[in-house]
Amino acid sequence: MKSEKNKLPTLTTSLSPSLLHLYDVNSSIVVIIDILRATSTITTALYNGAKSIIPVDSVAECIKLGKQMDVITAGERDGKIAEGLKYGNTPLQYTPEFIKGKTLVLTTTNGTRLLHMALAEGALGIITGSFCNLSAVCDYLIAQNKNVILACAAWKDRVNIEDTLFAGAVISRIKNNFQQNCDSTQIAEILYHQAKNDLFGFMKDYKASHYQRLMGYGLEEDIRFCLTIDNANLLVLYEAGRLIVG
Amino acid sequence: MKSEKNKLPTLTTSLSPSLLHLYDVNSSIVVIIDILRATSTITTALYNGAKSIIPVDSVAECIKLGKQMDVITAGERDGKIAEGLKYGNTPLQYTPEFIKGKTLVLTTTNGTRLLHMALAEGALGIITGSFCNLSAVCDYLIAQNKNVILACAAWKDRVNIEDTLFAGAVISRIKNNFQQNCDSTQIAEILYHQAKNDLFGFMKDYKASHYQRLMGYGLEEDIRFCLTIDNANLLVLYEAGRLIVG
Repeated sequence: MKSEKNKLPTLTTSLSPSLLHLYDVNSSIVVIIDILRATSTITTALYNGAKSIIPVDSVAECIKLGKQMDVITAGERDGKIAEGLKYGNTPLQYTPEFIKGKTLVLTTTNGTRLLHMALAEGALGIITGSFCNLSAVCDYLIAQNKNVILACAAWKDRVNIEDTLFAGAVISRIKNNFQQNCDSTQIAEILYHQAKNDLFGFMKDYKASHYQRLMGYGLEEDIRFCLTIDNANLLVLYEAGRLIVG
Repeated sequence: MKSEKNKLPTLTTSLSPSLLHLYDVNSSIVVIIDILRATSTITTALYNGAKSIIPVDSVAECIKLGKQMDVITAGERDGKIAEGLKYGNTPLQYTPEFIKGKTLVLTTTNGTRLLHMALAEGALGIITGSFCNLSAVCDYLIAQNKNVILACAAWKDRVNIEDTLFAGAVISRIKNNFQQNCDSTQIAEILYHQAKNDLFGFMKDYKASHYQRLMGYGLEEDIRFCLTIDNANLLVLYEAGRLIVG
């Protein structure tokens, strides 16, 4: 029994980009998690017909690509539309009417930076994860049968509740297909089980810092959308510099 | 009400030494937390009459001081007595008969390293925390009325369950005296409330990595001791290179 279990791939959780280097990135599929709101926006834009999404690190790079190519440029810094860009990081903005057939160049505070870290460390594969496509993420990870790192984007490297909750949701669904020896994975799953009946209420009750920040901007609808399971359920793969439907 | 609340000092939690730099170390009292087993051993040795404890980073430094001074040298690497040292990191070893009136030079994998990090970053004050002296820690932090960072030593920078649980125990007792805007603090408290009725059972049920490691060495009694509240209840202060009774 034990030796059977040892043949399974590993499942680990990095609660902050500052911890990613502790894990075996180059032998793992890395799931980039930035629930509020980068990875939820990415999923939604692709679900609503975007051709692809180019994630970039800086606002300057975003503006530069916008001048060179026929794309929509968007991004935020500290939760607000970045100066010099027209569109932000709200998933609700990326309706089929707006985004269908178009390419989006996106820069965000935490999620796109983490993606480039995973890339630089030689990840075996990179996908993005959000509650919006929870089932697609889980189905893919089980089918791949490779080591997995659930990588939370956090907030300026500080661990956050919502990314940890999503990691926990994935763990609760796929754990039997993996071997685990990772306390962060256990903590994330415990947290998720406590929250799962009302994710929004949990974020509110425990004064999640990002909940408070976005509520302060009047973005309750965004939060509720980003905490809804499978409302844009497709797989998002990173390939040759672009996020595409997998 | 809000402005009153804003006058309170802040309470934050660093779940790993890799995250400590994110917090305002130089305006805070830092609580070093290494439940299995450094800070539990430190508390117990002082409670049983050790004159002081000199925490050092390396085994070599430990051996060197042992040759220069009349001290007991002890330390572990990866949970076992380090080569060249005679004593280890089990709190049960430091009985009054053995340790009374003596000075202990101690080096451990995670806890002593974190202490020196906090020192290097200019902490306002440093104390050590363990379940063994939970009440003394909480009373002190409330009385000081200064910003607090609960700093988990983790395991080679990977977040662990037992240090997070202790942070949660402190938070549950002192939170009304502090302002909070830290998701790690919330997560730690949620975890603690889930575990508090049976800390040992919780560690076992959730396969805490350090629980498994120490059980593999036959150290169940150590684990049980380190999870017992207030069995060596005194304050441990770091002052001028030494840990002493506060």
